[in-house]
Amino acid sequence: MRVLYSDDVLAHVPRSEMKHGGMIPARESPARAELVRDALAAQGSFVFEEPSRAVPSALARVHDSDYLAFLEGAWPRWEAHIGAGNGGETPDAFPLIFPVRTLEDVRPSVIDGELSYYAMDTGTPLTAGAWMASLASVTSAAQAATCVSGGERAAFALTRPPGHHAAAGKFGGYCFLNTAAVAGQTLLDSGARKVAVLDIDYHHGNGTQSIFYERGDVLVVNIHADPDYEFPFFLGRAGETGRGAGEGATLNLPLARGTDWSGYSAALGQACRAIAKFGAQALVVSWGFDTFEGDPLSTFQISRDDFARMGERIAGLDLPTVIVLEGGYATASLGENVLAGLAGFAAGGRS
Amino acid sequence: MRVLYSDDVLAHVPRSEMKHGGMIPARESPARAELVRDALAAQGSFVFEEPSRAVPSALARVHDSDYLAFLEGAWPRWEAHIGAGNGGETPDAFPLIFPVRTLEDVRPSVIDGELSYYAMDTGTPLTAGAWMASLASVTSAAQAATCVSGGERAAFALTRPPGHHAAAGKFGGYCFLNTAAVAGQTLLDSGARKVAVLDIDYHHGNGTQSIFYERGDVLVVNIHADPDYEFPFFLGRAGETGRGAGEGATLNLPLARGTDWSGYSAALGQACRAIAKFGAQALVVSWGFDTFEGDPLSTFQISRDDFARMGERIAGLDLPTVIVLEGGYATASLGENVLAGLAGFAAGGRS
Ligand SMILES: [Zn+2]
Ligand SMILES: [Zn+2]
Repeated sequence: MRVLYSDDVLAHVPRSEMKHGGMIPARESPARAELVRDALAAQGSFVFEEPSRAVPSALARVHDSDYLAFLEGAWPRWEAHIGAGNGGETPDAFPLIFPVRTLEDVRPSVIDGELSYYAMDTGTPLTAGAWMASLASVTSAAQAATCVSGGERAAFALTRPPGHHAAAGKFGGYCFLNTAAVAGQTLLDSGARKVAVLDIDYHHGNGTQSIFYERGDVLVVNIHADPDYEFPFFLGRAGETGRGAGEGATLNLPLARGTDWSGYSAALGQACRAIAKFGAQALVVSWGFDTFEGDPLSTFQISRDDFARMGERIAGLDLPTVIVLEGGYATASLGENVLAGLAGFAAGGRS
Repeated sequence: MRVLYSDDVLAHVPRSEMKHGGMIPARESPARAELVRDALAAQGSFVFEEPSRAVPSALARVHDSDYLAFLEGAWPRWEAHIGAGNGGETPDAFPLIFPVRTLEDVRPSVIDGELSYYAMDTGTPLTAGAWMASLASVTSAAQAATCVSGGERAAFALTRPPGHHAAAGKFGGYCFLNTAAVAGQTLLDSGARKVAVLDIDYHHGNGTQSIFYERGDVLVVNIHADPDYEFPFFLGRAGETGRGAGEGATLNLPLARGTDWSGYSAALGQACRAIAKFGAQALVVSWGFDTFEGDPLSTFQISRDDFARMGERIAGLDLPTVIVLEGGYATASLGENVLAGLAGFAAGGRS
């Protein structure tokens, strides 16, 4: 299997995030990508390819242009803003307030205001390297899609930070640019008439859902912790089924705390049937490994062997498949977990 | 002048708030109220009165019932949630994510989710004593309004935390319950047909504006730092003039960075003319002293003498007047600043 990877994804080095009433060390780290890279490289079966630096054309089709301009230029503005008051190192950038109900969703001119306008949470530090790493990730995702459109069975975009929480014009959940959406759009732009995104991260992929919510050419299926008890709390309920041309092209399968393989497997079967019925010509898998029983963010009880079973089941859909890496915060286990999942997919082969 | 004050307002002891990419010591402290209390008590001209503990009936008319229930019960739920993971002292409660655009404004069931649903920023720690202090503040504000309705020229509610950023169902900007809105509603409930709220805090009083935005019986006038460069960023522009029955009953006078008395005075004149023209029968002043030239949050250049001039000008409106304390973070100067403002008001007398 081809692996799209660039060391540029290591450029984003967040220090801390807000949780439990204070700042804790950031969970989403460059080590995640390094460990996956090393685990895959140690096998003979993966062909690494570095993506070109050309910005994928699909990027501007899934993200707002003002948002992209903001992300690209945010760090120097933040540095200048903070530099005035801080002697030492510039801290990561965080928002202060959010345009929630009773406020207007208008864009202020100062950097504190713009951060607040474009953010959705307090867990996603914007760093000096966030733009470079995110751009490398969407570039890898797009080129993985191009490989698959060109006839390869599957390709893996080894991306970080993850992408599925990022909306057209909002960052959050450690995500800035939506890798799965860029991969899906690239597949469509390369000739697929209908594409499915299967999101199997522990958390609901609110960004991907919102990007495609009114479109009929992309089915977005999520299997995830019920937002009634889990981040992102405000999207991912079963009643959300799409709007307008997208009506019926969103499927949410929220699961209870502590779900193990038996419950998960049933949902995955339902997801696969929906994808087959939709008539997708290509598939994007937003694969987060934070469903793992050893993950610090998860309540699910999914084992390494279960990841292999997932891969096998997904391969059974028999679709050209782009796999992008989403979450997974049992960092030391992440390389082996990804390897198990991809090996399962390869074993699944054509049904 | 009568001063409504209860030591219960000291119960809210926030430790830190998010700013500049990390946590800094909380600016809004019990010492603020203590210093104002002591400065006023040292004069012979103030009559202190402790409010009764009866919850003012106006509270449920300006805040949502689900929000009030949440605030009252939040701390023990947070403590139970955090207690599971933390050995030591329970940190103040903060939200994680916000129901901004692309997300749904639905209420989750867990405490992290509810905090996220009801909050608007990351600068407002919910503490063990937040409810008690906020309740004492709205009670003081309501009883100040009752004094004024009963014939007193003016009364001062020595409140904290401040209230004007709190919306019907959202906390933020250090505020949980809207003291000015409760005072205004109490004046109406006591017989006034039309009431004006004059907000002269450095920051726009987004909560008060949003509470009365569709009502024609309350004119809300704000003089404040332009939200294009200053918190709360997402409300307070000149184009916001009210809606429905409230059309024309909102007036925003946003001012440039560095505004001094000459610029401020012109806006205050415009505000007073609007209040007179509206035909208000009573006035609530949301008085924040963070316009002060020595305030760490302010860019304005308002001096202690200017506060006296403000008071004199407002007294010139010749209306029964409830004054509630909003911001002011040059803590060591706050007592003297409040004294100067109230003395100016007293000197203004009946015109
Ligand atoms: Zn996740
Ligand atoms: Zn203020």
